[in-house]
Amino acid sequence: MDPILATYRLDVAPPLARKRAEELAREQTVELPDAAVRDPRIRSQVIPAIAELRPSDDGGVRAVLAYDAALSAIDPSVLLNLLFGNSSLQPDVRLLDVELPEELRIGFAGPRHGIAGLRALCGVRRGPLTASALKPLGLGPAELAELATRLARGGIDLIKDDHGLADHPFCPFEERVHAVCAALDRAADETGHRARYAPHVLGDGDALRRQADVARQAGADALLCCPMLVGPSAFHHLAHGLWDGPLIAHPALAGAGAIAPDLLLGRLFRLFGADASIYPHLAGRFAWSAATVERLLERLRGAWPPLRPALPVPAGGMDLERVPELVATCGPDVMLLIGGSLHVGDGGLDARIRRFVQAARESAG
Amino acid sequence: MDPILATYRLDVAPPLARKRAEELAREQTVELPDAAVRDPRIRSQVIPAIAELRPSDDGGVRAVLAYDAALSAIDPSVLLNLLFGNSSLQPDVRLLDVELPEELRIGFAGPRHGIAGLRALCGVRRGPLTASALKPLGLGPAELAELATRLARGGIDLIKDDHGLADHPFCPFEERVHAVCAALDRAADETGHRARYAPHVLGDGDALRRQADVARQAGADALLCCPMLVGPSAFHHLAHGLWDGPLIAHPALAGAGAIAPDLLLGRLFRLFGADASIYPHLAGRFAWSAATVERLLERLRGAWPPLRPALPVPAGGMDLERVPELVATCGPDVMLLIGGSLHVGDGGLDARIRRFVQAARESAG
Repeated sequence: MDPILATYRLDVAPPLARKRAEELAREQTVELPDAAVRDPRIRSQVIPAIAELRPSDDGGVRAVLAYDAALSAIDPSVLLNLLFGNSSLQPDVRLLDVELPEELRIGFAGPRHGIAGLRALCGVRRGPLTASALKPLGLGPAELAELATRLARGGIDLIKDDHGLADHPFCPFEERVHAVCAALDRAADETGHRARYAPHVLGDGDALRRQADVARQAGADALLCCPMLVGPSAFHHLAHGLWDGPLIAHPALAGAGAIAPDLLLGRLFRLFGADASIYPHLAGRFAWSAATVERLLERLRGAWPPLRPALPVPAGGMDLERVPELVATCGPDVMLLIGGSLHVGDGGLDARIRRFVQAARESAG
Repeated sequence: MDPILATYRLDVAPPLARKRAEELAREQTVELPDAAVRDPRIRSQVIPAIAELRPSDDGGVRAVLAYDAALSAIDPSVLLNLLFGNSSLQPDVRLLDVELPEELRIGFAGPRHGIAGLRALCGVRRGPLTASALKPLGLGPAELAELATRLARGGIDLIKDDHGLADHPFCPFEERVHAVCAALDRAADETGHRARYAPHVLGDGDALRRQADVARQAGADALLCCPMLVGPSAFHHLAHGLWDGPLIAHPALAGAGAIAPDLLLGRLFRLFGADASIYPHLAGRFAWSAATVERLLERLRGAWPPLRPALPVPAGGMDLERVPELVATCGPDVMLLIGGSLHVGDGGLDARIRRFVQAARESAG
């Protein structure tokens, strides 16, 4: 099998690059001084070879390490541990990119539904999907169900929990999910439009299993989950074990930049089974560059056989006035997530929901 | 109940501090623009109050936010999400400290065994405990069991898997754990000293449950686990659900610094149930400051009623020549973890193991 190729950025002067890359290769595998690795099989098969080493445009050095594919054990947390576990603690190294052989991509399996599955679920064949959030944290199930009703009546395709909603005593998961699903069913009886609902699941493995079961029984359509809070293996186990419907990744706790964000939220979350990935878009409350967003879009939707493309969800302070620009920037295969800003500005909530949906439809041309 | 007090460092000029702190307070809870929060109960109980705001010595500003304790749901991933989920994606904010009311500390429960439990397990009443690692990744169960035998014969108290060992096809978890436990039992028959063994568990919730069951059946004594790879709630569920023995935290993927490392590896891992916490000590392969290490030691062992103190495990490139210095720096309530460096240098592996154990005993005075 071909190796896993991992690209790192080392903050080191070029003359020291090989030594630093060799240290990195040992740190991530054998964790032994060079002189202690006497077994030739370990030296050649376990310690990754340095496949490439070149000065980087921004100073420093790019190093590509070639890891034996068997070391990943086809498990997301084993893979992340292998590529960056200890080195995440060192200030002079970032993980920029990963390429995996096709056998591993098949093994991880990636999005179970992908863009086509989300479009089918929402009944939207072309143009952007619309999404909004149930918020704020602190409301009870009945109040959130009331907001869900208004979003559904206004024509929103997908309604998700704010990722701050968990299984709190003042808003228990089970009660919330049943209340929202019932509200969406009633709204569908009135309007003919059944908005889809993605509750947020969070906790340990048993909690995730219970919450997925509750969501299924209540008739929820998708799940929202934060891979870096529940652990990447638990996220993957939801996508390919505990839950059959679409799974939307949220980037909570995924920050800080030592793993390039387009790699983590784009390529890796897709690999681990995200059908859609929420990310902080340009000119919102988070400071990503246009180049990072462009790479992220490519990593989510670009060809990476046999993995299905995943839907990008620009978020983090978008508002409805930006719909045409968002579709122009991201293209039509996108889910527009507008949450807080629907609650302020001209015309009241219901009117703004309708204007959002209308703007999204018009942007489909 | 008293609030949760979280201290942040904001990279902002003092005149803008209040506005930035208010944004942070909303980002972590309601995720709504200020004008959209009309409900006075949400404004006063859900959005945290700014308890303190003052210029910081290093420029920037320290802000203390007071969160309603009920928002934590007494779940580690809900707590981390609340304190830093979205803000982890913003480059101008770090999480420095957290204080919880006693009711929450009781709820989380912290270390189940703590320092006293680890001392009892290893039969070491005073002075440092000794630990080493089974490595490198790439060896099979028989070879690792052979290394375990040598470490046990030399008198090491606790033997842990390298955190790179997982459930690989070439070294299956079940086979490895049985082989190592059997080897340690045989060595105990010969020498009278039964070294303790902490295999490394990693994966999704079902995998952790299976691995804990295997470890119990095989007679393993403790577990090693990486909270930031398995997810903090899964780690907590191991400590207070899936596993009865001591639990040792490993910092893989915990790096990058947006959460102060002494807070994460010290206070939070202790809160989540770590009986011992491995951390990168001074002058090793990782670049922590003396002040950070000092704070970490206090956070692991200092009074934080009713939570048991947890054992610090300085690591990351220590060697046996440093034993007296390590005990002088860290005090006698410490587990000395020396792995790779036993495999190089004068005298061969067996002699160096004995010298390590001897040096640790002598340091106890």
